[in-house]
Amino acid sequence: MKKNEIINQRIAALREEMKKHQIDAYIIPDKDPHLSEIPPLHWQSRTWISGFTGSQGTVVITQNKAYLWTDSRYFIQAAKEIKDTEYILCKEGIKGTLTPLELIRNTLNKNQKIGLDGTLFSINQIEQWQNVLTEKGIAINTSLDLFNVLWTERPPISTLPIFIYPMEYSGMDSQTKIKQIQEKLKQNNAEALIASALDEIAWCLNLRGKDIAYTPVFISYLLITLDRVILFIDSEKVSKEIQSYIREIGVEAIPYSETFDFIKGNTLFSSILLDKQTTNYTLFKSLPTGTEIKTANNPIPLLKAIRNKTEQQGLRQAMIKDGVALIKFLIWLEQNKDSGRESEISIAEKLLNYRKGQNQFVSESFSTIAGYKQNGAIVHYSATQESNTMIEPQGFILIDSGAQYLDGTTDITRTIALGELSEEEKRDYTLILKGHIALASAVFPAGTRGTQLDILARLPLWENKLNYLHGTGHGVGHFLSVHEGPQSIRMNENPTTIQPGMVISNEPGVYKENSHGIRTENLMLVCEGEEGMFSDYLHFETVTLCPICTKGIIKSMLTHQEIDWLNTYHQKVYNKLHNFLTKEEQDWLKEATKAI
Amino acid sequence: MKKNEIINQRIAALREEMKKHQIDAYIIPDKDPHLSEIPPLHWQSRTWISGFTGSQGTVVITQNKAYLWTDSRYFIQAAKEIKDTEYILCKEGIKGTLTPLELIRNTLNKNQKIGLDGTLFSINQIEQWQNVLTEKGIAINTSLDLFNVLWTERPPISTLPIFIYPMEYSGMDSQTKIKQIQEKLKQNNAEALIASALDEIAWCLNLRGKDIAYTPVFISYLLITLDRVILFIDSEKVSKEIQSYIREIGVEAIPYSETFDFIKGNTLFSSILLDKQTTNYTLFKSLPTGTEIKTANNPIPLLKAIRNKTEQQGLRQAMIKDGVALIKFLIWLEQNKDSGRESEISIAEKLLNYRKGQNQFVSESFSTIAGYKQNGAIVHYSATQESNTMIEPQGFILIDSGAQYLDGTTDITRTIALGELSEEEKRDYTLILKGHIALASAVFPAGTRGTQLDILARLPLWENKLNYLHGTGHGVGHFLSVHEGPQSIRMNENPTTIQPGMVISNEPGVYKENSHGIRTENLMLVCEGEEGMFSDYLHFETVTLCPICTKGIIKSMLTHQEIDWLNTYHQKVYNKLHNFLTKEEQDWLKEATKAI
Repeated sequence: MKKNEIINQRIAALREEMKKHQIDAYIIPDKDPHLSEIPPLHWQSRTWISGFTGSQGTVVITQNKAYLWTDSRYFIQAAKEIKDTEYILCKEGIKGTLTPLELIRNTLNKNQKIGLDGTLFSINQIEQWQNVLTEKGIAINTSLDLFNVLWTERPPISTLPIFIYPMEYSGMDSQTKIKQIQEKLKQNNAEALIASALDEIAWCLNLRGKDIAYTPVFISYLLITLDRVILFIDSEKVSKEIQSYIREIGVEAIPYSETFDFIKGNTLFSSILLDKQTTNYTLFKSLPTGTEIKTANNPIPLLKAIRNKTEQQGLRQAMIKDGVALIKFLIWLEQNKDSGRESEISIAEKLLNYRKGQNQFVSESFSTIAGYKQNGAIVHYSATQESNTMIEPQGFILIDSGAQYLDGTTDITRTIALGELSEEEKRDYTLILKGHIALASAVFPAGTRGTQLDILARLPLWENKLNYLHGTGHGVGHFLSVHEGPQSIRMNENPTTIQPGMVISNEPGVYKENSHGIRTENLMLVCEGEEGMFSDYLHFETVTLCPICTKGIIKSMLTHQEIDWLNTYHQKVYNKLHNFLTKEEQDWLKEATKAI
Repeated sequence: MKKNEIINQRIAALREEMKKHQIDAYIIPDKDPHLSEIPPLHWQSRTWISGFTGSQGTVVITQNKAYLWTDSRYFIQAAKEIKDTEYILCKEGIKGTLTPLELIRNTLNKNQKIGLDGTLFSINQIEQWQNVLTEKGIAINTSLDLFNVLWTERPPISTLPIFIYPMEYSGMDSQTKIKQIQEKLKQNNAEALIASALDEIAWCLNLRGKDIAYTPVFISYLLITLDRVILFIDSEKVSKEIQSYIREIGVEAIPYSETFDFIKGNTLFSSILLDKQTTNYTLFKSLPTGTEIKTANNPIPLLKAIRNKTEQQGLRQAMIKDGVALIKFLIWLEQNKDSGRESEISIAEKLLNYRKGQNQFVSESFSTIAGYKQNGAIVHYSATQESNTMIEPQGFILIDSGAQYLDGTTDITRTIALGELSEEEKRDYTLILKGHIALASAVFPAGTRGTQLDILARLPLWENKLNYLHGTGHGVGHFLSVHEGPQSIRMNENPTTIQPGMVISNEPGVYKENSHGIRTENLMLVCEGEEGMFSDYLHFETVTLCPICTKGIIKSMLTHQEIDWLNTYHQKVYNKLHNFLTKEEQDWLKEATKAI
C-alpha cells in the first residue's frame, strides 16, 4: 500500500473510534504530557496519523474532513508529506487561516462534541477552548486517548536510565536550587509547585536522561512543597547510585504511573503554584478539590535561564570545541564540494563525526538542517532519502546544527557559498548579515524585552519588503533543551526582560521558495550591565566561534561599523581557536577570518 | 501666608474630613469623570491640595504622611513646587519607587480603610485596588468626594456652548459614524456602549466645545444602543441650532446631572460594551443589576484614529499654516535673541501671535513649553513668572508647541541653538536627530506594534548610555486632543498595531538636569502599504513642515542615508511653504533648509 493510502486508512479507522465515543471532531496535537517540544516516540501520534514529520503541527479530524496546521517553517515540507492524502494544509500565520479552535467553532453545531487527550494540552489551551466552545454549546471530552486502541505498534514509554550531572558542569547543587524555588513559593504564598517540563526537572535535580532525542532529559514529574520534594519516575530508570543520590538531596521517589492518583489523594498542600502554560490539563484536574491555584509565574524557567559563572565558562569551552569541529568540517566541505559525491545527508554525517571527536560530546542538540539551494528555503528542512540532494559547486548551502556537550549546548547556522552566487542571493545574504550584526551590537537598558530588540535584526529585510515568520532569538539550555524560555527575541510580546546571564540565539533568515534560503545564527550571552542614565545598560557577548562566510557579502552595502564588527568577530574566532588547530587548519582559518 | 503653609493647612483640613469618615488614607488622582488628560478646573483637586501644577500626578494623604507621585517629565518641577510642604515626592519609573497601591498595601493594616471618589478612577484601576487590598483586609470607600466640602472656592462645572464641526473638516457625517459603531456592537454581541471620553463623544457627533483648555470638547456622556443614541449634556450648552442638529442626526438629549440615575433605572439594554480603561468606576456601578458587561475593546478610538481623506488633506493644510507661522516666528527669534529683552514667556506669546494670524486658528493645542538651557531639561516645563528666564545668545532653547486649527491639530518640538554650543550639547543633539530620522524612515510590515518601532528612536542614545522615560510617539486627534490613542510608540507593550491613516508623533529627547534638554518632534501620517513578502509594508509621511536647526549637528556622526533624509525633508519644507512667504522669509527659509 502506498504511504498516502496508509494515512487515509488510519484516518478512516480513527473516525470509527470517534463514532463509538460520539465524537464529531478529534484533536491531535504535537505534544507529550510534559508539553515537550519534541515528544518521545510513544507520543508521536500526530506524525502517525498524518505522515507529517515536522516538529510543529496539529491535526483535526472530523467525519468528513482532515486538517493539518503547521507554521511557515514547514509549509513546503508539509505539503510534500501530505500529498495525495485527505489532509487539507492550514498555514499558520497567514492572513485568513483559521486556528483549529476557530475552525471547530465555525463548522460544528450546538450539541456536537469534540474529543482530545487532556494530558497533551496545557491548562490555558483547554480553558480557552472551553470558553469559546461552551458559548456555542459544543461539549469537550478531555480524557480520550484513542491511539491506545488504534496504534497497534505504539512504542512503549522509555525506561532508559538517568545519570548525575556533576557540580563541575552545573555550578550549583540541587539543594540550593530547591531552596531558591521554595523561597519563591513563600513569596507567592504558595505551598507547593509541580514541575512537569522535563528540562525544569533535570535542572532542579542535577540529573539527566536519554528519553528524548537530542535533549538529555527523562520522563517524570516533580512535586516541590515547602518541606518535601517528590519525584515521580519509573523505578527502572533509577540505579542504586541514583537512589542514594536522590535520598542524599532529600528527594522521595514514587512511580511515574501513579502520578495522577497520588496527586488526587494527597494532603501535602492546600495551595499550589501552577504554570497554566506548561502544565497539562489532566494533571490540573487531578488536584484535590478545593486546592487553591496560584497563577504566578513558575519561577524555575527564569532561575534556570540565568547562567552562573561555571555554566558561562562551560559554554565558552563548549563553543571552542564546537568551533574546532566546525573548522575541520568547513575545510573538508571546501575540499569535497566539487567532488560530485557529497549530498545533504552525507555532509550532515561528516559534521556529526567531527563533533564526535570533541571531548564531552554527547549528541547533536537537534536534527541537523543541511539544505542545499531551494531546500535551504524550507525553514526546518530535514533531508530524507527522497529529498536528499547532491551538492554542486554553485549557490548556497544552509547548515543549522548544534551539539550537546556535557559543559554546554550549541546551536549555529551558517549559509555557505559553494560556488557562484546570483546578485539576489548576495543581496539577501548581506541583508541578513546586517540584521545579525545590528542585534549582536545592541546596547539596551535593563528592563528591555526581546520584542523591543527584534526589529534590529529585521529592519534591513523590511526595508526591502522581506521578512521571516520565525523568531529572531530563543533561549538555549545548559546541556538541556536547545530551545528554552522564558526569554525570546521575536515580534510577539513576551514580558520577560533580557537579563545578564541569559543565553539567546541571533538568527535572522530569509527564505525564497524554490530558490534559496539564508540564515546566520550565533548564540549570545547577555553581559552584566554598565551604569548609565536611569539604568544599567546591557549588551551581548557573541559566544559562538565560527567564521561567517564572506563570499556572499556585498561590501558596499555594509556601513563602516558593520565591517568593523565582522572583522573584530573574525579576529576573535581566530584568537580563540587557532591553538586547537593544525598548522594547515590555522592557515585556512587565517584566510577565512581575514579582514574584509 | 506662604504657599507652602497654605498647602500644609489644606492637608490638615483634609485629614479632619478623613477622620469624620473613618478613612486612613485618601487618594486624589489627576482626572475628571471622563478621565480626561487635563481635567476642567472643577476637577483640579490634586493641584489644589498639593500645589503641584503638572498634568500628571497622584496624591495620597494618610494621617501622618503626604505623598505626591509624578513621572520623569515633572521630577524637577514637582520638587520645586512642593518645596517646604509636607509632601514626599515619589518618582514614577525609577527603581525602588512604590506605586500608590503598593505603598498603601505596605503601610496600612487589616481593617483600615481608604477613601476615594470613584468617578475619577477607571474600572480597571479600582478592580486592581480591590483585588490587592481585599486580600490584606483593607476596605475601600469608592464614593467619597471630600472636596465638595473642603474646597470652598471650587469652580463650577462649565456651561459653555457647543458648536457643529462641519463635514468639510470631518469628512464623515455623524450618522455614518454611529452606524459603524452599532455594527461593531453587533459583532461583539453587545446591545449598547457608553462613551465617556470627551474626544470620543465629540468625534461621534461631529460636535465640539470649549470645556477643556486646548481641546475643543464638551462635558457629556454618550449612550449608543442598537437603535437609540442618548447624549447626557447640560441643557445650557445646547443652542436652538444644536438642538435641531442633534434631532436631525437622531440623538436624544438628557441632562448631564441625571446620567447615573438614568443609567441605573434604564431598560434599554441587557448587555453593554464597556471599556474598563476609559470608563469611570461610579458609572459602572450605576449599571442595572444583571447587565452583562462585554469587555471587548471600545471600537471608537480606533475608528477615530484612522483618518479619512478629508481629514488627511485638512492636516496637511494645517501643517502648511503652522509651518508659515513657525517660519515667521523663527525669523523673529533670530532677530531678537540677542536683544536681552526676550524671555521664555515672551517668545511663547510671540509664537502664539504668529499662529493667531493663520486661517482657521482656534487655540494652542497645549501650553507651549519654551525651556531655555537647563529649563529645557524639565520635560513638560511651563514657564511661570517665577521660573521665567531671559534668553541670551548661547545654548539651546527647546520649544514644544502646537495649535488647534479647524482643519487639524499640530504638535511640534524644535530645539534651537541661540548661540555657542558645547561639544556635549552638539553630540546629544545629533544623537536625537539620528533617532528621529531612524523612526521617520522606518519600513515595517502591517501588524507591527509601536513597541517594536520604539527602539529605532532610542538606539543612538542607548549606545551612549542615555535614554528618555517618556514615550517616543503618541497619536494626535483631528481638531481634538493632542494626545490620543489607541496607538503609541513606546517601550511598554501596546497591542494596537500601527495602521494606515493614523497620525503619530516622533519625539525622542534627552534631558540633562541643570544643563540642557533636547527634543525634536514631527508628526507622521502612516501611509498605505505596498505589497511585499508575507504582508503589506507600511511607512511614514512626515507631515510637520518646519526646518530642523542645523547648528547643533555634528555632520561626521551622521550616515549618508541620514544626511539624505535631512536634506530631502528640508527641500520638502521649502517647496511646500515658500509660496506663502514674503521674499525675505523665502530667503531665510532657503538658508535654513540648504543641504548640509
